[in-house]
Amino acid sequence: MGSSWNSRLSLSIFGQSHAPAIGMTLDGLPAGEAVDPDELNAFLARRAPGRFPWSTSRKEEDIPEILSGIINGKTCGAPLAAIIRNQNTRSADYAQMADIPRPGHADYTAHVKYGGHQDVAGGGHFSGRLTAALCIAGGVCKQILTRRGVTIAAHISMIGWDPGSTEHSADIESFGFEDPANIDRATLKSLLDMDFPVLDHAGGERMKTRIASAKESGDSLGGMIECAAIGLPAGLGDPIFGGMENRVSSLVFGIPAVRGVEFGAGMAAAAFLGSEHNDPFYFDKAGVVRTRTNRHGGVLGGITSGMPLTFRVSVKPTPSVALEQESVSLSRGESAVLAVRGRHDPCIVPRAVPCVEAVCAIAVLDAWIEVGLPQGG
Amino acid sequence: MGSSWNSRLSLSIFGQSHAPAIGMTLDGLPAGEAVDPDELNAFLARRAPGRFPWSTSRKEEDIPEILSGIINGKTCGAPLAAIIRNQNTRSADYAQMADIPRPGHADYTAHVKYGGHQDVAGGGHFSGRLTAALCIAGGVCKQILTRRGVTIAAHISMIGWDPGSTEHSADIESFGFEDPANIDRATLKSLLDMDFPVLDHAGGERMKTRIASAKESGDSLGGMIECAAIGLPAGLGDPIFGGMENRVSSLVFGIPAVRGVEFGAGMAAAAFLGSEHNDPFYFDKAGVVRTRTNRHGGVLGGITSGMPLTFRVSVKPTPSVALEQESVSLSRGESAVLAVRGRHDPCIVPRAVPCVEAVCAIAVLDAWIEVGLPQGG
Amino acid sequence: MGSSWNSRLSLSIFGQSHAPAIGMTLDGLPAGEAVDPDELNAFLARRAPGRFPWSTSRKEEDIPEILSGIINGKTCGAPLAAIIRNQNTRSADYAQMADIPRPGHADYTAHVKYGGHQDVAGGGHFSGRLTAALCIAGGVCKQILTRRGVTIAAHISMIGWDPGSTEHSADIESFGFEDPANIDRATLKSLLDMDFPVLDHAGGERMKTRIASAKESGDSLGGMIECAAIGLPAGLGDPIFGGMENRVSSLVFGIPAVRGVEFGAGMAAAAFLGSEHNDPFYFDKAGVVRTRTNRHGGVLGGITSGMPLTFRVSVKPTPSVALEQESVSLSRGESAVLAVRGRHDPCIVPRAVPCVEAVCAIAVLDAWIEVGLPQGG
Amino acid sequence: MGSSWNSRLSLSIFGQSHAPAIGMTLDGLPAGEAVDPDELNAFLARRAPGRFPWSTSRKEEDIPEILSGIINGKTCGAPLAAIIRNQNTRSADYAQMADIPRPGHADYTAHVKYGGHQDVAGGGHFSGRLTAALCIAGGVCKQILTRRGVTIAAHISMIGWDPGSTEHSADIESFGFEDPANIDRATLKSLLDMDFPVLDHAGGERMKTRIASAKESGDSLGGMIECAAIGLPAGLGDPIFGGMENRVSSLVFGIPAVRGVEFGAGMAAAAFLGSEHNDPFYFDKAGVVRTRTNRHGGVLGGITSGMPLTFRVSVKPTPSVALEQESVSLSRGESAVLAVRGRHDPCIVPRAVPCVEAVCAIAVLDAWIEVGLPQGG
Repeated sequence: MGSSWNSRLSLSIFGQSHAPAIGMTLDGLPAGEAVDPDELNAFLARRAPGRFPWSTSRKEEDIPEILSGIINGKTCGAPLAAIIRNQNTRSADYAQMADIPRPGHADYTAHVKYGGHQDVAGGGHFSGRLTAALCIAGGVCKQILTRRGVTIAAHISMIGWDPGSTEHSADIESFGFEDPANIDRATLKSLLDMDFPVLDHAGGERMKTRIASAKESGDSLGGMIECAAIGLPAGLGDPIFGGMENRVSSLVFGIPAVRGVEFGAGMAAAAFLGSEHNDPFYFDKAGVVRTRTNRHGGVLGGITSGMPLTFRVSVKPTPSVALEQESVSLSRGESAVLAVRGRHDPCIVPRAVPCVEAVCAIAVLDAWIEVGLPQGG
Repeated sequence: MGSSWNSRLSLSIFGQSHAPAIGMTLDGLPAGEAVDPDELNAFLARRAPGRFPWSTSRKEEDIPEILSGIINGKTCGAPLAAIIRNQNTRSADYAQMADIPRPGHADYTAHVKYGGHQDVAGGGHFSGRLTAALCIAGGVCKQILTRRGVTIAAHISMIGWDPGSTEHSADIESFGFEDPANIDRATLKSLLDMDFPVLDHAGGERMKTRIASAKESGDSLGGMIECAAIGLPAGLGDPIFGGMENRVSSLVFGIPAVRGVEFGAGMAAAAFLGSEHNDPFYFDKAGVVRTRTNRHGGVLGGITSGMPLTFRVSVKPTPSVALEQESVSLSRGESAVLAVRGRHDPCIVPRAVPCVEAVCAIAVLDAWIEVGLPQGG
Repeated sequence: MGSSWNSRLSLSIFGQSHAPAIGMTLDGLPAGEAVDPDELNAFLARRAPGRFPWSTSRKEEDIPEILSGIINGKTCGAPLAAIIRNQNTRSADYAQMADIPRPGHADYTAHVKYGGHQDVAGGGHFSGRLTAALCIAGGVCKQILTRRGVTIAAHISMIGWDPGSTEHSADIESFGFEDPANIDRATLKSLLDMDFPVLDHAGGERMKTRIASAKESGDSLGGMIECAAIGLPAGLGDPIFGGMENRVSSLVFGIPAVRGVEFGAGMAAAAFLGSEHNDPFYFDKAGVVRTRTNRHGGVLGGITSGMPLTFRVSVKPTPSVALEQESVSLSRGESAVLAVRGRHDPCIVPRAVPCVEAVCAIAVLDAWIEVGLPQGG
Repeated sequence: MGSSWNSRLSLSIFGQSHAPAIGMTLDGLPAGEAVDPDELNAFLARRAPGRFPWSTSRKEEDIPEILSGIINGKTCGAPLAAIIRNQNTRSADYAQMADIPRPGHADYTAHVKYGGHQDVAGGGHFSGRLTAALCIAGGVCKQILTRRGVTIAAHISMIGWDPGSTEHSADIESFGFEDPANIDRATLKSLLDMDFPVLDHAGGERMKTRIASAKESGDSLGGMIECAAIGLPAGLGDPIFGGMENRVSSLVFGIPAVRGVEFGAGMAAAAFLGSEHNDPFYFDKAGVVRTRTNRHGGVLGGITSGMPLTFRVSVKPTPSVALEQESVSLSRGESAVLAVRGRHDPCIVPRAVPCVEAVCAIAVLDAWIEVGLPQGG
């Protein structure tokens, strides 16, 4: 039952890359919430392929058809269900893939789990394409949150190695929020308008160059995505297993390439002194409790503090590379060499940005519904 | 409902630091599994305070009383329930804490969430003490897995800054598994016998020195814990939200100080080339599919590959430090200065090690039960 | 989240009567299970309207489109998703219904719950039409069970009052399994072939007469459905909240008109002596433990005994009747008289029969997956 | 995981009849709710044995020890955990029971499910004693609801056959609420004060006589319990699987002897005409929508209408009877005769009454928390 997520909201993701459709059902949304289809489509367009010179040329329209849950442009209390038809499928020959698992892919583990009955075409249910369904759910949640004054935006904080260079990963430049205790709305909104959302323009150009260079080598690159949500009230989330971190992470690893998630100071928290890691409390001019710094990433004891919620995820490099790789033939029981053909995206990090925002929106709305979502503006 | 975790296993953690007891119920265990109480107590002892010169001197016996679920030394199919009585509680005065929240603690967010009704004594339900209950559950799961040839062990891979020095976090030495594709059982077992489990003896001594030094400054330190599980079959876990990463992370953030979790190459995956991050497949001499490297941390598409499952978590420095900190008085609506008294542990990383193993054991057993746990040896 | 059901299987039902489609997702099915679309369509056809002289003339093809989860005719481990398009919708005027709630319908309670944002057309998400989605899920589960030697069939054991007569309900004839400890497979199979499945032919004819008579009066009738599953192994289900009764009932009230459910001797168990209600155990010739009678309905302590699983549900009369009824105008705050126009089914009991079988199949497969479903024949 | 129930509230029941303790954890309660221990004990006392001449003489104090979740007499947001110690256990010899399963009990099915590892003493986890834990949870929920103006009370509407007489079950007298649309609070409250709660005093005396007579014959009797909740707002519950009926029934079959549950007109709904079963709407003097009759039992489409919530459950006769019964010896593979010794209760119906109220309170509070519980008085 791994494709269902159940908390206050109940989300079910279905589909395979080359099945008739992918889609999702989302149950538990409040009734009477406007859903703007254009805004939703625009959100999904940020995930769509083909916007970059290096992108895969598979043309996906990614226009969801809403099957239920919306009446007169508003949620009606019934589950929201939506699908995206798959097109131009079944053309490729995936027979090889069933026999010679691609390194770094789920081909082998799916084969073991499903005893050879899995859908191998295009990665089947393990395809990154399924994140379009996640974005439908997240896009709707985001609209609901926006009306409550919440802004969620993510950006690319790092793209990995320059292939061919010898630089070490520690030297890779990365760009995070300069002052996570004071993330302004304008900055976040500007990120939402960028094709390649970064905090540093020049740094972003260097990232793009690295991607183009990787593509040329027949290789691929990963990167890091940082997400922030501002405008949240204090008091969302639960202790122990119900914390915002638990909720976000239980969703975020549903994005196929994510390998790690960290909140606030994150992994680096391990290297801090307590006196430095602790964020001092103060009352701001409006009498609201705030913290001077935001190492805690807006979450203490699993519960939001009212400070910006911040987290970062690492995205591994696309496993499908043109370079030859060592693998095995499962049927013949012997070694095999694999070169993945087709036009694969050398870096899916930019397309993963809205997926991370989607996850954030779902987790936040879920926790907010639990304590009572206020009427929207 | 944040203190319950429900998958194939259903785990409920209860208690507050100064309530009559803490405890847990664990439903869904197979019947007929021997539970060795001495082994369980030894596992819990690894989490107990007081084993280090720097430790808090609160004496917790941490001997669980098993209330149900075991007959004649074996599980009987009914839920396992166990409690640990709290002792020497209520002596301290926690009135101040209710008014002046400790920076880095859940005092403030719990106050907001529960409207002032929360139990503040000793951190209440947010206390690290609750992880003893987690370790009861994990300790039992670990015994069940051990009989199936699975070995789970964690170690301290890093302890943070040397207070008073000026060294930068990037210079902090860390020690991970040298070859995560080939982690041998003897190494893992030796970790389980160490009070301060590390892979490098000399490095471990330097870590201890840093902790002692932090204590002297009235400060605290965090660190990094790496966990490995070997002997797992391929095929455990589910796609999307049911992956091993989702399961582990939904549990691991139940350990109060954890700020990030990463699998395999983890956050660093962002800096790899695809051709380097992909782990080549091969058949070993026994005809089993393995990978030459283990960047994937034993999980592909959420499903175990049969390679060692590896993940790391960062543990933040203990927020309770003797140094004066800036905070607020919630009742008076003004700034306040706080110096946390009492004998707090300057570094809880060593005590968190068995908690991380507990999480791993619960997640693995849960996924294994789903596909059918074989009879134990 | 009321439209999702989560146990070992995860079922999500979506759609409204006049939305673009209704449908379902079913996650957790074993991979490699053949799904015969013709058999599924035949199962759904038993629920379709228009098979009786008295039926509503709304023409629903009820041919599901499978969107995902099936490859080459077999389940592939990914969630099964299927939809049925709604046709000829939006023609009626449902404005009145939004204002004057139909007695016996969910119009009023939905209005309160969703603050007027609910979809009123055709009953929206509360329409009996949603049971077609339930039947997709149940139909697939049934095929999987059939291959394991399980036969599930339901029949109409009673149809209510003869309108215009003065007979008392206690005099209504009803026909249950004569010997619930010995239900033979041929009898069950024959029920599956009947349009109007009954155990007594003449009694069935009298039931039909009563329905026709109710229709003529502009009134409607309810009835009772009895379901049996044979071929189940002993040992399915869990104690307390996980019993087969809990599972079945948590699903069966998802059929809109169901008002009660009883297992084995059921409500009548209240009137038995213990010495009569207890079913004596014996070994049959094959050395299998059986019971001489089957008051327990195949379930003891929530767990199957290997005897036929039997339960009955009551189905209330269709609330939409042509006769004038007293209601209120919500907008005007005053009394109103309502006569439901349109061609409503005077008795939906025959169409509910496959829905009850569907529920039984889902609950049984769910419990069987939990303990390990054997390979199919 | 059958002993856990998870919705907005998360309830875990643990223990065996002769384990050190039984108990429960209840997570998700609002913080700041007063819990009166005397009131709770009084509620539990209604379930305790030994109040009737015919009762089992096992002396259970049934005074729960609250382990966590309460501070200064109020809930603190952390899970409520409480236990009741078992006393005078292990005295009996249960070896026979492990070999010769009692007809009508879970002995055999537990043996199959748990492979002989189950706790057989006193029925183990299947013992009716576990309902004391259910009553702790329900008793607390009831207090919270009472403060919101909700009154929940159940009564014995029927007790079965007079052993030795020849009367037929259809002739057994039963006493339900005369006008389920107008159940007054005083009537309900008076039920809570009765040892043997009935609506008709003389009828109740006849029921007691029947029980005494059954005891004398070494036999046992079942009965019917009717429960009502008044003061509920309209709008609680969800469609399809989240209806009040689904919630109540998913809990109520956790009471071991329950064999059926029906809402409003219930099973008899099957015998009504639609025009009679439909409850006409009207505005009462306060401008509130009500129904003239209450065949719907306060629930339409799974959602409360604001009318009294009513349901009935059947309770089977105690399976442990002194009379000789036919059974089998599992070890010897042959027939065996069993006469259950010990002082068993000839009718547990009176003791099941508070358990039914407990279930009702949990289900109602759960649904109310979902839509936002108002502040208590």
